[in-house]
Amino acid sequence: MFSPIDHAMMRRAIELAKNGVYTTAPNPNVGCVIAHNDEIVGEGYHYQAGQPHAEVYALQAAGERARAATAYVTLEPCSHFGRTPPCAKALVEAGVGRVVCAMVDPNPKVAGRGIEMLQVAGIEVQTGLLEQDAIDLNQGFIKRMKTGKPFVQLKLAASLDGRTALANGESKWITGPAARADVQRYRAKAGAILSTSATVLADDPSLNIRWSELGEAVQECYPQGNLRQPKRVVIDSRNRVTPAHKLVGLAGETLLVRNQADEQVWPESVEQLVLPAPEGEQSGIDLDSLMNELVSHDINHIWVEAGAKLAGGLLSAGLVDELILYQAPKLMGSDSRGLVDLEGLVAMSDVPELTITDVRMVGPDIRITARLNEI
Amino acid sequence: MFSPIDHAMMRRAIELAKNGVYTTAPNPNVGCVIAHNDEIVGEGYHYQAGQPHAEVYALQAAGERARAATAYVTLEPCSHFGRTPPCAKALVEAGVGRVVCAMVDPNPKVAGRGIEMLQVAGIEVQTGLLEQDAIDLNQGFIKRMKTGKPFVQLKLAASLDGRTALANGESKWITGPAARADVQRYRAKAGAILSTSATVLADDPSLNIRWSELGEAVQECYPQGNLRQPKRVVIDSRNRVTPAHKLVGLAGETLLVRNQADEQVWPESVEQLVLPAPEGEQSGIDLDSLMNELVSHDINHIWVEAGAKLAGGLLSAGLVDELILYQAPKLMGSDSRGLVDLEGLVAMSDVPELTITDVRMVGPDIRITARLNEI
Repeated sequence: MFSPIDHAMMRRAIELAKNGVYTTAPNPNVGCVIAHNDEIVGEGYHYQAGQPHAEVYALQAAGERARAATAYVTLEPCSHFGRTPPCAKALVEAGVGRVVCAMVDPNPKVAGRGIEMLQVAGIEVQTGLLEQDAIDLNQGFIKRMKTGKPFVQLKLAASLDGRTALANGESKWITGPAARADVQRYRAKAGAILSTSATVLADDPSLNIRWSELGEAVQECYPQGNLRQPKRVVIDSRNRVTPAHKLVGLAGETLLVRNQADEQVWPESVEQLVLPAPEGEQSGIDLDSLMNELVSHDINHIWVEAGAKLAGGLLSAGLVDELILYQAPKLMGSDSRGLVDLEGLVAMSDVPELTITDVRMVGPDIRITARLNEI
Repeated sequence: MFSPIDHAMMRRAIELAKNGVYTTAPNPNVGCVIAHNDEIVGEGYHYQAGQPHAEVYALQAAGERARAATAYVTLEPCSHFGRTPPCAKALVEAGVGRVVCAMVDPNPKVAGRGIEMLQVAGIEVQTGLLEQDAIDLNQGFIKRMKTGKPFVQLKLAASLDGRTALANGESKWITGPAARADVQRYRAKAGAILSTSATVLADDPSLNIRWSELGEAVQECYPQGNLRQPKRVVIDSRNRVTPAHKLVGLAGETLLVRNQADEQVWPESVEQLVLPAPEGEQSGIDLDSLMNELVSHDINHIWVEAGAKLAGGLLSAGLVDELILYQAPKLMGSDSRGLVDLEGLVAMSDVPELTITDVRMVGPDIRITARLNEI
């Protein structure tokens, strides 16, 4: 069904889409290649919400040469009038002869409409080429469109024996600079960084993106002037975060998630989100409600950096999609602090099981990527 | 200094040496290739203590064609009369023109004597080709020859968060069948398997090699009839192991390490080794003394399978050379049991640091290989 040329062109479209990986949120990453056989006549990718879609750039580049060409798109072209006119319409008007999509639109309410618009105009449409690669480009967007929930990545860092700090709390520099730079790149791809007041009080962290730490390869395709700060979301049910904490004054927005707002003077970039306590409890934040709120704030993809308690709470609630675990080549012993608080485990069958999808060295440390089993 | 042909020939010699990896203990693995340029005229490897050395097989195969050839040997040829006549002498008598050794003999008392015997006879000798690969072949033999101590590999298995059992003790099948088969192959390479009475009482393990579980690749080069059982060494200072425990009746020797012998009727394959308690303590086994005893029993290479206490004791005593850590894709939570008991850690600078040398998947589990930093 798909020729080697088709594969090569879609591979190129996926590479193009990756140029937007730090900037498109909450929009998806999309790449487009327009070609006559193995001759590329136009390329494009989506870079930022509010800017043109990938197809528009590719059609502009192709001009008259789009006529009777094949358009390779990593996602079904849109059929709706949003900030830009529908891309399916633009492809029809340009006279392309064939459209190959890596995947259909993940939103069940609109899936297939772009394809239909093309087919009605007599254009041959094929889908499913390098579909998994296209899915991997937009895990947050796809999860949200399909389920209404955000994609949640839980970052943890520990010694080889799963410890985060000595019994007395000492923990500085468990992992090395390469792992910390890797974390910067993960943060930069997310719509929000989720943490807790416990972490803020303990470490006074920045929870931001430092362009200088992203590494040369990223910096090349992501100019400093375009730097996007993910929203910092801090669970703070006891109103312990104050205007004096470092992250409050940094560039980017901060959302304090509380049971009730306080009357302090906060910068404009700080918002207090009031959420109820979990059912049957006096205080704390219901994590399901929080996820729903974040989706309604247009956040698809959440990167979690917090302690053992929130990690365990998210895992127990089934809210974690992917674990990113850094392991330092150290052993800290059984008296040291644990990685994940999980309550009520009495049989091995109660234990959360994961599927490891990647393991690699990051400097002297190990990075393990694992998916939670679909439940 | 070394040509591509030299490299290829030594690579072949190292591959040959690996054929003995399950059988030569306590002797080293050695391979030998005799060649005229790129034409191999004889090959051999050492298979079992008491059988001829690699050079003897290779010279037999080469016959008259050994004259003026180059001999590639993974270890300096021996110069002493042991169970077999010295290989250096045999090479001289066969009239080889050149000898290339991957490494010199690691025993400082004899290092260089084989080379000297060759040079005195007018043979050109070069050393150091693929030396690291040669070292990797014989970690136990080399450590013992250089330091008088055995090479100790500590095997641990845990969840991703470093837990070995739930708080109530439940732990069956943390890792999968592929990891368990991998453990069989590691055991099979060792001179001894070290464990404790706590493990024997908890699990009644076999601590033996099951040929059926070694996997096809190993079975091919390791016929069932040649199966060698590493010595089972069980630390049992309170004489808790009884003749009724499973491992007592299995093929192979068992050494019970005790503060005093008991008077029970033991099979001939069981020996009681009486060692003193650590200085200043009433009971228990001094681990340094145990290691010295095992070396005097001709054991170069010890594979440790035990609980958090012995693991911590060996680590704290600086006796572990390599960690082999299996991680199952599970999270067991902070209330579950820890991997390594380490006492008295108050600063991150007290924490044992390792160097990770290999990370890979073994079925659905991860296997991490890490070296303890040379102290």
